[in-house]
Amino acid sequence: MKIDHMTYAAPALLAADWGTTNFRLFLFGTDGRIIAKHTANIGLKNLGVLTFEQALLSVMKGDFDRPDLPILLSGMVGSRTGWVEAPYQSCPSSLKDIASHLVDAPSDRLKVKIVPGLRAPADHEGLLNVMRGEETQLFGLSATLGDGVFVLPGTHSKWAAVENNVIEGFSSYMTGEMFQVLKRHSILGDLMDNDRDDEAAFTLGVDRAMADKSFLSLVFSVRTEGLFGHIAPESLSSYLSGLLIGSEIRAESIRHGIRPVGIVGDGTLSNLYKRALTHTGFTDVTIHDGDAAAAAGLWAIAQQGKLVL
Amino acid sequence: MKIDHMTYAAPALLAADWGTTNFRLFLFGTDGRIIAKHTANIGLKNLGVLTFEQALLSVMKGDFDRPDLPILLSGMVGSRTGWVEAPYQSCPSSLKDIASHLVDAPSDRLKVKIVPGLRAPADHEGLLNVMRGEETQLFGLSATLGDGVFVLPGTHSKWAAVENNVIEGFSSYMTGEMFQVLKRHSILGDLMDNDRDDEAAFTLGVDRAMADKSFLSLVFSVRTEGLFGHIAPESLSSYLSGLLIGSEIRAESIRHGIRPVGIVGDGTLSNLYKRALTHTGFTDVTIHDGDAAAAAGLWAIAQQGKLVL
Repeated sequence: MKIDHMTYAAPALLAADWGTTNFRLFLFGTDGRIIAKHTANIGLKNLGVLTFEQALLSVMKGDFDRPDLPILLSGMVGSRTGWVEAPYQSCPSSLKDIASHLVDAPSDRLKVKIVPGLRAPADHEGLLNVMRGEETQLFGLSATLGDGVFVLPGTHSKWAAVENNVIEGFSSYMTGEMFQVLKRHSILGDLMDNDRDDEAAFTLGVDRAMADKSFLSLVFSVRTEGLFGHIAPESLSSYLSGLLIGSEIRAESIRHGIRPVGIVGDGTLSNLYKRALTHTGFTDVTIHDGDAAAAAGLWAIAQQGKLVL
Repeated sequence: MKIDHMTYAAPALLAADWGTTNFRLFLFGTDGRIIAKHTANIGLKNLGVLTFEQALLSVMKGDFDRPDLPILLSGMVGSRTGWVEAPYQSCPSSLKDIASHLVDAPSDRLKVKIVPGLRAPADHEGLLNVMRGEETQLFGLSATLGDGVFVLPGTHSKWAAVENNVIEGFSSYMTGEMFQVLKRHSILGDLMDNDRDDEAAFTLGVDRAMADKSFLSLVFSVRTEGLFGHIAPESLSSYLSGLLIGSEIRAESIRHGIRPVGIVGDGTLSNLYKRALTHTGFTDVTIHDGDAAAAAGLWAIAQQGKLVL
């Protein structure tokens, strides 16, 4: 693709959300609009023998062949096992805090800076939650949507409160991973068969989780409800999903009350969260594209950090 | 071994606790004392092509070669996939209730009766907990120790309250299985190495679980505590164990208050439960042998059911 110079401003920044599995590259114009974007299979776990610099250069082709531009990276690329460690900054954290702690990645040919992750106090004294990559999405959402409570569903779901462009704090839940390990490796998956999306089974799970007394006891009901034929084999997966997402929403309802919630992500999982939140009384629930949030955040950080004018 | 007729009363009953993995056979004298006992690798999942009758006959050798005696079986042998289904009886359930619902197993050569399992209401309307085999151990404990709250730790831990020889109700927790799947198949096991029993890490886990706000959030701290170097790789397994056992104790403390608790089982796991219970303020905690409890229960049920005089 050749850039249409009648339509786009001059290229000003290359930026990427670079995680364990995902890599999403954006080319921004001087006006902050995205000129081009590209995804590649160079997540940290797929790098093989490539260095980070080699991997990045391998995708800088065509429109992206601009080693002269500043480059900003967010995500696990800044972890201890990444290109260079960008130490966690503490919440509350503003866009200015983050932008003043960008870390230079060692490279002879490229001008690369990496966004630090965030840490926040967890429920127990001395315990911390951490994120890498999500902070950039949150600053992007904050720049475009303003204040709010945001949930980023996934393997390790995050909930964060953003006020006056400051990420006040956040929590982590291993909801997605728990679903996978219980379904694949525990007795709870044994009775599941021909999974389908069963809204009634899902909301039953959500309701029970909202009134939960003990997770380790409640989750075992996937077994007994299947054994007694109360829930069909094809609906048990929806029931487990409801129990887990409901458990997360229960904790966050206690933390934040019923507030407007923005869900960050695409597809099936975001819709399940929206269904569960609406079912439990949240009245203002919206879904936002994760890629767009990352891009908006990278641009906002680059501006604040004076990588672009 | 030849039975010493100077020491033992005449044989009166063969009885076994026959579960998914375990098989424990007892030969009782007319006075209720155990003359001989035997374990064999014929749990339900190891039967192969053998019928239940063939498997049982295969272990009726030597002292146990008494096809003339009444035979009483408890455990998963009475499940839908067992020898014959002995339908769940409802709690509250007395020894008399159980003994009047023994089910004959089809056999040309043996006189076999099977103890039914129990079901009890769980925390949510319409939800049920079930047990098979543990009810027999509980009636054995009740016969020898009297009233109490008993915990049977394991893959799917059970807690039951027994009063006036009636099993009032019980709860199930998938504590043991959760420990295994999280350790083996989730990110929480990644940082564990050279596991050792670390009492401080274990009790830290118990304390945090007792003050828990969200299991899915708290359990993720195994990851963050490892990442930040707060808990050493060899102690993370103890920490996870404390979180899970503590979560169980928290729910039961709310249910029953701080009461005398009898732990049923042997070895390491019972000692961990005792440590956790003592740490959380339980003052009267005892450990009881699971085999002895099963044997006492089988004898009590056989007497009540008039299989023996």
